[in-house]
Formats: sequence, C-alpha cells, structure tokens
Amino acid sequence: MTYCIAINTDEGLVFCSDSRTNAGFDNISIYSKMHTFVWPGERTLVLLSAGNLATTQAVVKKIWSDIENSAAVNLQSSPDIRSAADYIASISAGVQKQHVERDTSSTNFEATFIFGGQIGTDKPEIMLIYPQGNFIHESEEHPFLQIGEVKYGKPILDRIIKRSTPLTQAARCALVSMNSTTRSNLTVGAPIDLMIYSKGALDFGQRMSLTENDPFAKQMSEYWNQGLVQALDSLPRFPWELN
Amino acid sequence: MTYCIAINTDEGLVFCSDSRTNAGFDNISIYSKMHTFVWPGERTLVLLSAGNLATTQAVVKKIWSDIENSAAVNLQSSPDIRSAADYIASISAGVQKQHVERDTSSTNFEATFIFGGQIGTDKPEIMLIYPQGNFIHESEEHPFLQIGEVKYGKPILDRIIKRSTPLTQAARCALVSMNSTTRSNLTVGAPIDLMIYSKGALDFGQRMSLTENDPFAKQMSEYWNQGLVQALDSLPRFPWELN
Repeated sequence: MTYCIAINTDEGLVFCSDSRTNAGFDNISIYSKMHTFVWPGERTLVLLSAGNLATTQAVVKKIWSDIENSAAVNLQSSPDIRSAADYIASISAGVQKQHVERDTSSTNFEATFIFGGQIGTDKPEIMLIYPQGNFIHESEEHPFLQIGEVKYGKPILDRIIKRSTPLTQAARCALVSMNSTTRSNLTVGAPIDLMIYSKGALDFGQRMSLTENDPFAKQMSEYWNQGLVQALDSLPRFPWELN
Repeated sequence: MTYCIAINTDEGLVFCSDSRTNAGFDNISIYSKMHTFVWPGERTLVLLSAGNLATTQAVVKKIWSDIENSAAVNLQSSPDIRSAADYIASISAGVQKQHVERDTSSTNFEATFIFGGQIGTDKPEIMLIYPQGNFIHESEEHPFLQIGEVKYGKPILDRIIKRSTPLTQAARCALVSMNSTTRSNLTVGAPIDLMIYSKGALDFGQRMSLTENDPFAKQMSEYWNQGLVQALDSLPRFPWELN
C-alpha cells in the first residue's frame, strides 16, 4: 500500500509520500514514490506514484527516456500541466495494457498517480491520474488530492486545508495526515518524502526525507499528540458536567 | 454503512453509534443502532449493531423475547458478560444461517456487534462479536472497539484513548471520532447516540441523541476545528523557517 498527498494553496504546492512497498506481508521494500522533474527557471514538475511497482517504475523510466531522447512529446516540452498529465496517463495505460497481455493470472497491474507543478508563468496545478488513463484536478473547496490508503489521513485535511492555508501550515498538515496513516496501516511507512514548492519559484523547492527516527518527525508527532489533548480539553462540557 | 465505538476506561464505559442505514444510495433510513438492557442496581448491558438490518433487528427481537419469556439463557440471567456475548453471537449466527438457507442470490446477511456493560460487582467489559459467531475483547494498550466504517475515526482514538483517560474526555473523543466519520462518509449519519456509563452505577447512564443541527454537536465540531488549528500552529517550524 501507499499514501501520497498533494495540496494546492494560494502560496504554492505541497507534495508528500511514504516509501513502503509490499507484495504480501513478508515482502517489504523501500522505494521513494516522489519523482521530480525540474528545469530551474522554466518548470517544476512532481509525480507521486501508487499501485503496481513494475508499472510505476516503467512509467517513470519512459518519462526520463523521452526527455533524454527529446521525444516529440515529453515533460520538458509539454505546453501545460494538463497535456503533461495526459501524456503520463497515456504511458501508464499503455504499460498496463502491455503487462495484462503478457500475464496469464489476472494480476492487478493498476497504478494511480498524482502529478503537479508549475510551467513558466502558468498557475501551479495538481492532477490525479487514474489507472484507466483519465485524470481530474482538485476541488476548489478541498484543494488537495490523495492516492493509496486515503481514509485515516483525510479528516485532518478536510478540516484544515483551504486555498488560503499558509504553505508551511499546509505542509505540517500533510505530515500529520501521513503520521496518522503510518500509525494505523503497516503497509504505509517511512522514510516520508516532503516537498514544498513556492508559487513562481520554478526551482527544486524545499525537500525533506524523514526517517522513522528522525528527531524532527518525532517532535512533530509528540507536539501533535499534546495539541490534540489540549483541543479535546477545550471542547464544551456535557450539560450535566456544568452543575 | 455504520460507525459504532465502545471505550472501556478505568472510570467506566462509553458507547457511541450513528443512525443511518442504507440499501444503495437512494434507500436511506434512520434506525438507532444502540440497544440498552438495564435492570437498575443489577446489570447494565448495551448492544451496538452494524451490518444487515434484517439480521440485527431479528437478533434484538430474539433477545427481548427471551427476556420476556424467561428463556433458559437470556440477558437478565447470564452470569457474566462473556457468556452473554456468546449467547448473542449464537443468535446472530443462527439468524444468518436461516436467512442464507432461504436466499437464492448469495446476499450478504452478516452482522457485527459491540456488546458490553457491567453485571453486579464484575468489572465492566466490552466485546466485539463477529458475524462468524465468535468474539474478542479490547486490547489493554488501545481499550476501544470499533465496527463499521472504522478508518476515518481511528487515528484520534489511537492517539488519545488509554485506560486512564477520564470518562467524559473519552466520550468527547468518541464524538470527535464520529464527527470525522460522518463528514467523510455519507452512509454514516446523525442522530448520534451517546451513552456514558460510570463504573459501578448499574443504571441507565447519561444518554444523548444528537441530531445534525443540535447546538451542542455544532459547538463541539466548531471548537474541535479551532483546537486543531491551534494544535497545527504549535507544531515545530521547519529548519529553514528558523533563519
């Protein structure tokens, strides 16, 4: 399993992903699911991947080889985020089709992606690319996208994230959402990759990779627990407690 | 879908359940999923139900009729919580078996229950009764049980609930967990039934039924949102924010 989040705020973008892959309970590996494609001053693009690892690796490999070979369509030359998402969706669907045709045991080769970034002076955008080869952008009301094990970490995003949320607060919220998920689902795990991109920067952004015992990650988790206890204490008393 | 919680603290028990039932998206009803069996001064027993409504209604009906008819085994005469849970598990498995034998279309008749309370001077206990007719109690580390749509509301319980959590704080935590779930899953909905039972009381406990527009429920949700924003604000800054 996997958990990835992207948030699109007025100040910029947040991307966050875990690094655990598993094929059954006894076959666990660490692979980063965050792939960045940056041409400083021109474009910053980020791809987060969930699903069949052979599919997602083949898709990322194809994206890089198309860039290196200056293919007719590639991430460096795509005119906008939407057409770049369509290009990735088309690669993903093609890879899955190829693997399905080879397979004799109805394996699930599906992969889901979050793709986003900024190209030149365009607005930053984020897209969720489905295994079926189509894609959607985030909603205006809830400007975030999730893939993988989405339920544990959704309530905090639902309650906090708006377009106007400051960029670093959105990033802290993403880390909390990720932390709630890694605590509850064994197949989502550290290192946690975080990238914070300021609108208009067209650079590599601020990037962190937090291991399980990283002091910053531990402090985050401890402070969050304390904050929740205080939040609970601040809730209204039951009517019979007031007498 | 359904969401029910039971918490077993040093001070007593909390039970919380939603009231929405649905058979498809266009067939929604309101049924309380909290059933109480109280003989003041003798025993307080609570049953929360999830799953096939025909099954859960038949189980509750059978429990009441066994009490009224002073059947050889019934909730009023069970010597302890464990044997009472076994009695309910046996009814549930029997009802499902009967319905499966009648059915020609492999319908899912499964039902899951949380059952708990206190009998005389015994310790209060909570049990999760599986559709298969067996049951488990809560863990010492995480002294709560959930049935139905459990993921959205689990992180807050994981982080807060311990044996030593004060009873009313555990109840507020259950309401927050329920609120997170009703916001995220349309098939979990108000009125929210809450029962707070103080250890040793052997009474009806404190009981509330919170409708969607109940001022207390609204205030809870608003205060919680504010508390979360403060908790986020209290988190450590990123290294580059400190310069």
